[in-house]
Amino acid sequence: MGIHKFFTSLNDLERIIRAPGRFKFEEHNVAAHSWKVSQYALFFATIEERDGQTIDWKSLYEKTINHDFAEVFIGDIKTPVKHSSPELKEMIAKVEEGMMEKFILREIPEEFQEVFFDRMKEGKDATIEGRLLEMADKLDQFYESFAELKRGNADKEFVAMYRIALKKLLAIPLRASVTYFREVMLDDVISEETVIDIKEITRQVLED
Amino acid sequence: MGIHKFFTSLNDLERIIRAPGRFKFEEHNVAAHSWKVSQYALFFATIEERDGQTIDWKSLYEKTINHDFAEVFIGDIKTPVKHSSPELKEMIAKVEEGMMEKFILREIPEEFQEVFFDRMKEGKDATIEGRLLEMADKLDQFYESFAELKRGNADKEFVAMYRIALKKLLAIPLRASVTYFREVMLDDVISEETVIDIKEITRQVLED
Amino acid sequence: MGIHKFFTSLNDLERIIRAPGRFKFEEHNVAAHSWKVSQYALFFATIEERDGQTIDWKSLYEKTINHDFAEVFIGDIKTPVKHSSPELKEMIAKVEEGMMEKFILREIPEEFQEVFFDRMKEGKDATIEGRLLEMADKLDQFYESFAELKRGNADKEFVAMYRIALKKLLAIPLRASVTYFREVMLDDVISEETVIDIKEITRQVLED
Amino acid sequence: MGIHKFFTSLNDLERIIRAPGRFKFEEHNVAAHSWKVSQYALFFATIEERDGQTIDWKSLYEKTINHDFAEVFIGDIKTPVKHSSPELKEMIAKVEEGMMEKFILREIPEEFQEVFFDRMKEGKDATIEGRLLEMADKLDQFYESFAELKRGNADKEFVAMYRIALKKLLAIPLRASVTYFREVMLDDVISEETVIDIKEITRQVLED
Amino acid sequence: MGIHKFFTSLNDLERIIRAPGRFKFEEHNVAAHSWKVSQYALFFATIEERDGQTIDWKSLYEKTINHDFAEVFIGDIKTPVKHSSPELKEMIAKVEEGMMEKFILREIPEEFQEVFFDRMKEGKDATIEGRLLEMADKLDQFYESFAELKRGNADKEFVAMYRIALKKLLAIPLRASVTYFREVMLDDVISEETVIDIKEITRQVLED
Amino acid sequence: MGIHKFFTSLNDLERIIRAPGRFKFEEHNVAAHSWKVSQYALFFATIEERDGQTIDWKSLYEKTINHDFAEVFIGDIKTPVKHSSPELKEMIAKVEEGMMEKFILREIPEEFQEVFFDRMKEGKDATIEGRLLEMADKLDQFYESFAELKRGNADKEFVAMYRIALKKLLAIPLRASVTYFREVMLDDVISEETVIDIKEITRQVLED
Repeated sequence: MGIHKFFTSLNDLERIIRAPGRFKFEEHNVAAHSWKVSQYALFFATIEERDGQTIDWKSLYEKTINHDFAEVFIGDIKTPVKHSSPELKEMIAKVEEGMMEKFILREIPEEFQEVFFDRMKEGKDATIEGRLLEMADKLDQFYESFAELKRGNADKEFVAMYRIALKKLLAIPLRASVTYFREVMLDDVISEETVIDIKEITRQVLED
Repeated sequence: MGIHKFFTSLNDLERIIRAPGRFKFEEHNVAAHSWKVSQYALFFATIEERDGQTIDWKSLYEKTINHDFAEVFIGDIKTPVKHSSPELKEMIAKVEEGMMEKFILREIPEEFQEVFFDRMKEGKDATIEGRLLEMADKLDQFYESFAELKRGNADKEFVAMYRIALKKLLAIPLRASVTYFREVMLDDVISEETVIDIKEITRQVLED
Repeated sequence: MGIHKFFTSLNDLERIIRAPGRFKFEEHNVAAHSWKVSQYALFFATIEERDGQTIDWKSLYEKTINHDFAEVFIGDIKTPVKHSSPELKEMIAKVEEGMMEKFILREIPEEFQEVFFDRMKEGKDATIEGRLLEMADKLDQFYESFAELKRGNADKEFVAMYRIALKKLLAIPLRASVTYFREVMLDDVISEETVIDIKEITRQVLED
Repeated sequence: MGIHKFFTSLNDLERIIRAPGRFKFEEHNVAAHSWKVSQYALFFATIEERDGQTIDWKSLYEKTINHDFAEVFIGDIKTPVKHSSPELKEMIAKVEEGMMEKFILREIPEEFQEVFFDRMKEGKDATIEGRLLEMADKLDQFYESFAELKRGNADKEFVAMYRIALKKLLAIPLRASVTYFREVMLDDVISEETVIDIKEITRQVLED
Repeated sequence: MGIHKFFTSLNDLERIIRAPGRFKFEEHNVAAHSWKVSQYALFFATIEERDGQTIDWKSLYEKTINHDFAEVFIGDIKTPVKHSSPELKEMIAKVEEGMMEKFILREIPEEFQEVFFDRMKEGKDATIEGRLLEMADKLDQFYESFAELKRGNADKEFVAMYRIALKKLLAIPLRASVTYFREVMLDDVISEETVIDIKEITRQVLED
Repeated sequence: MGIHKFFTSLNDLERIIRAPGRFKFEEHNVAAHSWKVSQYALFFATIEERDGQTIDWKSLYEKTINHDFAEVFIGDIKTPVKHSSPELKEMIAKVEEGMMEKFILREIPEEFQEVFFDRMKEGKDATIEGRLLEMADKLDQFYESFAELKRGNADKEFVAMYRIALKKLLAIPLRASVTYFREVMLDDVISEETVIDIKEITRQVLED
């Protein structure tokens, strides 16, 4: 039914809550998450550019703001589910793809379908922009779990989420960005006063 | 980790919102929904019993309170997604089954695993209790969409949801219950004052 | 005005919040509470059955899902109020009874009034099903206060609520269930990491 | 435990929701309600003073801000319950009184107990300040139901609430205030655009 | 458009959240805050009266319930913003004044404009009622930050808010009230069990 | 205190509600709004590019995601306030600028200050990217008011907001985009079923 339909569907993502079913002191919706991801990515792209890399800004813009649009169809599937088995993960990816294809063919005017197919495909590829998206997405998981631990959310899942996000961040193949995160930002993170001892958890991950 | 883990996971279902992503004036969680379903089923089982049927009360009790437990793993997948294609629907069912199996084997003490496998399997079978569950589950979809239309929720999806629920209710193979719903209850439903004209929508469905 | 009126009144219980007026990190409504109670009761009934007891499943089903329906009339009166004096407690019980009688006579069709009078009467009697209801209801109070303490709710009332629930649970005349709770489940409970020291509070209660 | 305990209990009234269990587009807590009542009363007292009456401002101040403090004990009992029978209404009043007495004797330092007994007693007496409280309290019920009808809340209870509040407002023995309300304010009220036809409902009440 | 417009604007203050943008376990709206301020002021006025002071009760009533009405225009500007520079603070005050003047001239009937100009002007003057308002307003900031620290809100801003409020409370020129606060109430405050060590923070402020 | 401080301040914008104080069926936070604006802008930039314009994608990316960051300091000042007088509007702009400057000098590491000063300055300039931001920002106001009217929000302010947004959209100097909005999208908008008659309001604006 046209771009009007697409635009109103953006509003739906303000009602999709991340990590549904889990207790948290503060909830985050997918729309706000996407914005924070686009902010982190802009910063690290600046770091990479200063380090001599070339950034395709249009691609980074498209990748970051669209990377979770598919959640409009099936919501934010819990991460443990996604990773419980490779088959399951693949099945869910196929479900999302199938829904997205249907949506574009039915709702998007023909003249824009190619553009949408391109923008809505999986963005975490091996390009520098794909890696920046990966880093920014993980960083938001890092900050969401950090905030819960800081305020005393004693559910084990948030400790696990913090650990996994931190490990993955440190392993992303973006030399300058990861160095900045580890050498500069992490010091500020662990110097905050927190109810649950994040400093210790962080130290353990860094030692591994 | 035992029954304690199972009991605390019940709390998670208080945080799974039905029909996520859709605008509604009032949200419903899966725990409260399950309770309403168990109430509707108790009433219609009474109707069927008076009509000469024999009810297995233990089975009905188990079926109604457990029928959406699997949503603790993947949330309330939007109905349009579930029904977008037979393959998708089957895939999602398999994902849920796989997660449930894992959960029972890992969390439930061995002596109770058989009981849990039995209780957690799909309840909507051809037994009278399976049909009562089907009827009660549809009735809650009927009431949820009714309440939105009554208060002026002009999103088309709720008109569609109301129509589909009504059609399916009228076709359930439970003679006495469906007769009671159509002859007695429906009159009360359409005599309510509503912002959107539910009487007319109901009349159209009944005529088909 | 018939069963339609009764069914829509179930929705009201989704808006009655337990322990109103008290600060809590997570709120629970009476509908979701009733469902959790029906789940706990199903489990302990299984334990009792294995221990040689006979369960009237229809009665247990009716008792658990209906036990708080009367709160639709006067809400969830704070527990301290209920127990502040025997006269007060009795008065409140009478108010609820009076409202319930009025409701059944005015809203429920004559042919179902007897059934409703039976189902809506106080369920916590000396039968095994009455005791299972009592145990399940206390267990939910136990879990609600546990969750608050775990996350750092320093209001004294939740420590008191936890203590009272635990004491009462240990004294319920259901040998097999209470043994299972004390010997098996409680170990899992106190091994969780919590902001407020629940292990110590539990130890004190067990010593008394 | 002293005035600190009293002051923190004020916070509890921010969590007591008016008309609990009923669906509404906007919820109101007892603390905010009390403030609006004190605002309406200040205005109508000004009207009465200009009409030649003498106002005891200290009394009006005390009456308006304290008139619902007792709800901290038993919450906002639904109005239909309160008025379902004279005995019930009396019983509930006694429960509240008993709780209030206990609270003052246990929490308020002896030197302030007399002041508190005086301030916390039923304020709607035959004094002009008692009548101003009555008028202001009814006016808030009028405005709460008005706002729901305006936005399309089709639940019959709000039409009933609006009608009753309007009738009672017109009958309060405060000549100048009621005249101002009927002749001046009501015109502005019914000239608003509303989803449900409030103008017609108002006309019917005025004709009776 | 008259007093009806003024009365409905009171409802807007139920939607203005204090300290917007900051994470808190519990939110407070400006309407409820105004009520708590009027309660604290009533108590301390009683203390001052017993100490021999004369209270103008009408003035205190007007000052406390109206002191934040101007937030209906620009919301609750963050305190750090207000105090970031004297010019900024003055500018914001002028914006509020300008909006208030416009509102009174456009919405309030001419016969009441003078009364409203008087009631809505800045209330924190050098009169005893002005000081009681200042004390009551600070006390609510004290209690709001206290409640956050008690439950484990580790955001530095609430420690700062608690410290500043406490310091200012101790310096208000109301001998009897401040003595009562320091000698009697503060003991109860610091004897509460809290997640963050409020006793220590309080001790530091008292020592300065 | 570095980029960590900047990143955590993004979270604050998830708690700043747009149009505070106004009743709405659905609230929107500034973070989610910024994301929707970046989505609309991406689409219209595509339209303009196809029409032969050259887009600076980096600039558009920076402008859209940063355009409301300054609200972290003073919140979302009500639009009527902003436009009540040219002086007021200018004063508020100065307050925001002052706060932003302070923030950058105090929190952002020196090596990034210039970049931040550039990114955080007012984005709605005469460049094509500035106009795309202006269009996208207005479009979100258009959609927010549309959604309220559609569901029956009878508050006059939303009719006014819808009218003003529509008028401004039609006047933005972006030929291809405005043509697409008026000729293609607007038809879909007014063909939706709505509680309040949006078709008529739209027709009136188009006629002017």
